[in-house]
Amino acid sequence: MTNAVDLARDLIRAPSVTPDDGTAMDVLAAALEKLGFACTRYPFGEVDNLYARLGTEGPVLAFAGHTDVVPTGDEASWTRAPFSGDLKDGILWGRGAADMKGAIAAFAAAVGQYKAEQGDPPGSIAFLITGDEEGPALDGTVRLMEAVHAAGERFDQVLVGEPTNPNHLGETIKIGRRGSLNGVITVTGRQGHVAYPELAANPVPVLLQLLDRLLTRELDTGAPHFQPSNLEVTSVDVGNTAHNVIPGKATAQFNIRFNTAHKGDDLKRWIEDEAKAVGLGYAGKIDLNLAVTGEAFLSKPGGFVTLLQDAAEAETGRRPALTTGGGTSDARFIRNYAPVCEFGLVGATMHQIDERVPAADIDTLTRIYARVIAGFFAGTGK
Amino acid sequence: MTNAVDLARDLIRAPSVTPDDGTAMDVLAAALEKLGFACTRYPFGEVDNLYARLGTEGPVLAFAGHTDVVPTGDEASWTRAPFSGDLKDGILWGRGAADMKGAIAAFAAAVGQYKAEQGDPPGSIAFLITGDEEGPALDGTVRLMEAVHAAGERFDQVLVGEPTNPNHLGETIKIGRRGSLNGVITVTGRQGHVAYPELAANPVPVLLQLLDRLLTRELDTGAPHFQPSNLEVTSVDVGNTAHNVIPGKATAQFNIRFNTAHKGDDLKRWIEDEAKAVGLGYAGKIDLNLAVTGEAFLSKPGGFVTLLQDAAEAETGRRPALTTGGGTSDARFIRNYAPVCEFGLVGATMHQIDERVPAADIDTLTRIYARVIAGFFAGTGK
Repeated sequence: MTNAVDLARDLIRAPSVTPDDGTAMDVLAAALEKLGFACTRYPFGEVDNLYARLGTEGPVLAFAGHTDVVPTGDEASWTRAPFSGDLKDGILWGRGAADMKGAIAAFAAAVGQYKAEQGDPPGSIAFLITGDEEGPALDGTVRLMEAVHAAGERFDQVLVGEPTNPNHLGETIKIGRRGSLNGVITVTGRQGHVAYPELAANPVPVLLQLLDRLLTRELDTGAPHFQPSNLEVTSVDVGNTAHNVIPGKATAQFNIRFNTAHKGDDLKRWIEDEAKAVGLGYAGKIDLNLAVTGEAFLSKPGGFVTLLQDAAEAETGRRPALTTGGGTSDARFIRNYAPVCEFGLVGATMHQIDERVPAADIDTLTRIYARVIAGFFAGTGK
Repeated sequence: MTNAVDLARDLIRAPSVTPDDGTAMDVLAAALEKLGFACTRYPFGEVDNLYARLGTEGPVLAFAGHTDVVPTGDEASWTRAPFSGDLKDGILWGRGAADMKGAIAAFAAAVGQYKAEQGDPPGSIAFLITGDEEGPALDGTVRLMEAVHAAGERFDQVLVGEPTNPNHLGETIKIGRRGSLNGVITVTGRQGHVAYPELAANPVPVLLQLLDRLLTRELDTGAPHFQPSNLEVTSVDVGNTAHNVIPGKATAQFNIRFNTAHKGDDLKRWIEDEAKAVGLGYAGKIDLNLAVTGEAFLSKPGGFVTLLQDAAEAETGRRPALTTGGGTSDARFIRNYAPVCEFGLVGATMHQIDERVPAADIDTLTRIYARVIAGFFAGTGK
């Protein structure tokens, strides 16, 4: 039977910094094939993706995740080599231990555990694995979902194995994510000398006025299960070093994390309207580059989420809170196809030097996932 | 007798890009010594300066100017080599022709003309010449004035030969200059992830708020002979390229050109107060770097200014308007020691490729300056 910690270690030892997956996907596919999964690769661009399915009937429970990891940073700063997969004093070390090779291994091991106890499931279990979650995420889950959907695959529930717990296993389940909008404003005016402002068209005050309008609007005061939407101006740049020169161009970039009170297109329209209002009578011009990289979504509490809460509480003694905070994840690409929620290991060391997790957490997570699989097929997660 | 155009040509042929004066000051000193001036060099740092005086009694009329020039820019773009001093079809070509070797030559020639007609003046004529007006202006007029003042030299009137006329000789006399304040604001906050704004302290909104306060104050609606004071934000810089990162630092620079309604120190205090108000309750800090590079000043119309207007009108048919517009000049360093005004050639080509002036303008300016010298010693310029 698949041992979760052993598989996690083997996955860590296959270095897979985006987009080079190394052999991590091979390691996982081999383990899944041993469990009876049919594995299909979906390479897109530089990226490899894996779809695996056990069973042919519905209902289908899918586990989604990524084998790619972020760069190690300064390797010399690590206590143990970042791809060592060392297990020492109950701690499994290495890049990807928390985010999220440990959770992938736990889910595979949970399938093995389920099969050992109950045989083949009365339905199907699937794995949706990408090698491009930490990178641009263009050739990963978004295209994998399109491809398997086009191939006729349907999912009743998807569980993403991101490290959702801040400090202790069982703290939090993510039942949604905020949407994200990136904006770049470029104001082009006319350069000149500060002593003759009437001959120039300084783009800076126009840019500041537009940013002021964007910053002073209270987008909302929150939405059910969501904190208030928030706009951050992340850069303003002119690059003029001369004290006596009025510059010809100014740019700013900002990001909005928005809850379900907004749609990306509505926010874009608002920003365009504000730019139009500010630009009235200005001799220069205002260009906008607005990109919605994810819409806000919420998987309703109850049903599968309750099953997941019950399973986590049974194994950890903690009942996970339901949250929507934090950054985006690949769940944004899945939620158009199936209900999706997220639960994995403790993320405290993710993306950092000395990423590591307690081996016991991987085993506990395996048992939680096994309970979830059992509950799903027993019909308690509907 | 000194010929103005010949002397201007010789000065142009002595390349003197700040701070390397070449032999330009030697050329001028030789011409002045021939006219009977006693010449003293005041070298400071890399810069040479020249003080010359004809006569030992008062009243003292001084001509102030600079022999240094700005760089040529792309020499290949010039119609004639920038230090050729070519005289072709009545046009004298070369860097410095307008700004301001032509005016220096005209003033020297005017002294020659005055002496030829009336002999030695009943008083003194002085030259205050620097080689650091186009550069940092730290080792030039400011130190030369200190030194000659310490040596007991006093001036009843100073005339600066900057090219004050936009298009035609006789258009404008500068009777003052606006003050200038350079400011740099640095806001230091705490970097973070846009998804967790509560853990960061974004410096950008704080900087924008401060700039907004500075921009929305109407400093004044003008002052006698001055246009309204004006603040220009000339750069805002963060340099953050990551869309999902809240930056840790943001800077802005601005310049205020202010009229006689303000003192530099009052403006500094105002800016400091606004920064303090905006910084209240902010977790980061706001640093200011404020430098007043010149106070506003006005030489009252009438007296010498009227004499200069009369002289220009007699020779050009135009009565010069009295202005205080445009950039700063070395007059800001002189005005604490003596009444000062500015009148020279046409500045249309100054600092540009193909700087040039009509030779006839140099001759006309010579006659204007000669009238001014005569009037000054006849007592009509008081």
